[in-house]
Amino acid sequence: MVPQALQALVSAEVIVGYKTYLELIPDLLEGKRVFASGMRKELERCQTAIDYALRGRRVAIISSGDAGIYGMAGLVFDLCHERDLLISSPAAEAGQAVDFSVEVIPGVAALNAAASLVGAPLMHDFAAISLSDHLTPWEVIEKRIAAAASADFVLAVYNPRSKTRPHLLAKAQKILLEHRTPDTPVAIVRAATRTGQWTCLTTLANMPLEEVDMQSILLVGNSKTYLWKGWMITPRGYLQKYQVKSCWLKKRYGRCRPMPEPGPDKCL
Amino acid sequence: MVPQALQALVSAEVIVGYKTYLELIPDLLEGKRVFASGMRKELERCQTAIDYALRGRRVAIISSGDAGIYGMAGLVFDLCHERDLLISSPAAEAGQAVDFSVEVIPGVAALNAAASLVGAPLMHDFAAISLSDHLTPWEVIEKRIAAAASADFVLAVYNPRSKTRPHLLAKAQKILLEHRTPDTPVAIVRAATRTGQWTCLTTLANMPLEEVDMQSILLVGNSKTYLWKGWMITPRGYLQKYQVKSCWLKKRYGRCRPMPEPGPDKCL
Repeated sequence: MVPQALQALVSAEVIVGYKTYLELIPDLLEGKRVFASGMRKELERCQTAIDYALRGRRVAIISSGDAGIYGMAGLVFDLCHERDLLISSPAAEAGQAVDFSVEVIPGVAALNAAASLVGAPLMHDFAAISLSDHLTPWEVIEKRIAAAASADFVLAVYNPRSKTRPHLLAKAQKILLEHRTPDTPVAIVRAATRTGQWTCLTTLANMPLEEVDMQSILLVGNSKTYLWKGWMITPRGYLQKYQVKSCWLKKRYGRCRPMPEPGPDKCL
Repeated sequence: MVPQALQALVSAEVIVGYKTYLELIPDLLEGKRVFASGMRKELERCQTAIDYALRGRRVAIISSGDAGIYGMAGLVFDLCHERDLLISSPAAEAGQAVDFSVEVIPGVAALNAAASLVGAPLMHDFAAISLSDHLTPWEVIEKRIAAAASADFVLAVYNPRSKTRPHLLAKAQKILLEHRTPDTPVAIVRAATRTGQWTCLTTLANMPLEEVDMQSILLVGNSKTYLWKGWMITPRGYLQKYQVKSCWLKKRYGRCRPMPEPGPDKCL
């Protein structure tokens, strides 16, 4: 959690959030008015937060990861827009008549956290796609998977496998296999940075689909991504550009030879 | 900065980084061995960090934003791979013979930070693309822009306009305009969360190209993104799904009518 988010929670009078997320921060809820609700109650939570804000309360609405990436920030704005409220940012000029001000505090999104646990898979152009067809037609999702796969993006797949639509992941895998080789590296990261964290490095053809759930994120490599000794790495292109070859490096350094003291090595 | 990153810097003996970034954290460098270098010296910095680590030093290598997104994490792994080093994660089983262990600490990437400053533009599927053709052929970049635009991804454009290739942004704009309407919302965010921070909400056709530099990130909306009173918002689809209409909300709430005390409103 970034310090700014902690600060916002400490200074809030009202905290609104998904029940499971609020249970992760019991200490921060003490002495606050708390409104918790379950899955698919997003609209209710945001309305509640807005209504408290309209009554002059300092409200924090919680998302996991980054509120701006498949989180609650968008719905708060959508509702303010629909309700024709006047909202400003904390940085806006004083003196404006506003109903309240809104601040989005960026966070470490699930894709950032998942990637860090398995190495450096997102080092080149990537696309984030949610497989949930609850709010998006499946045809749109399919089109996006195909487009991202054909243009060799790394993919970060959110909401990969729900209990009610477990088959969508296999459909996505099939589309990906039309554009990528079967041995394309894939990381499955479940419950990143939480209790029960689990990571699995595998390949596009061999993904253990039944191990994937809604707490998981899938990272699908591009055509240059490789697996190496428990890590998943997408080259940015430096070594190719500078023609740094294994033999060159080995000749230059030996396997573990340290650089000479004291200065930096001029390797280019 | 996430607390984990601060902790890593505090406990490091050696800190390696791009000069401009190190200048942002002078207090954290006191008493450390510091290796700073300039642009295009990424390979040198990573080699230096690895060489110190091989000599048993605790090394922190700095990226801005998230080290795993267009940052230094990938190059460190690439070089360890090429040099055939044995590296483990801090969570790996003890007892393994390793040269050193590597930990990637995820951060708030530029796209997360930039999005938070202008509202909620990344609320639906999005693609991150770097316009730098220093390490990636322009043809690949063009293909990715077209694919992402045609599949209606929101776009986060990194390295949008360098001094040596200022014309690439106009080329990208032209490709985007083949797939998106001229009034597609665009945010330009320069120096997000730093001194000199500047944001501009505009449209795809009217982007002030000459205001964009390499410290900027562009956020290009999808077909549903809208600008509203100084904010840029991409709907996730809740309101459409639940058929929440302006008139319904206004009838239900009035413009600023607070919800009744004490309970949450059951709006669905």
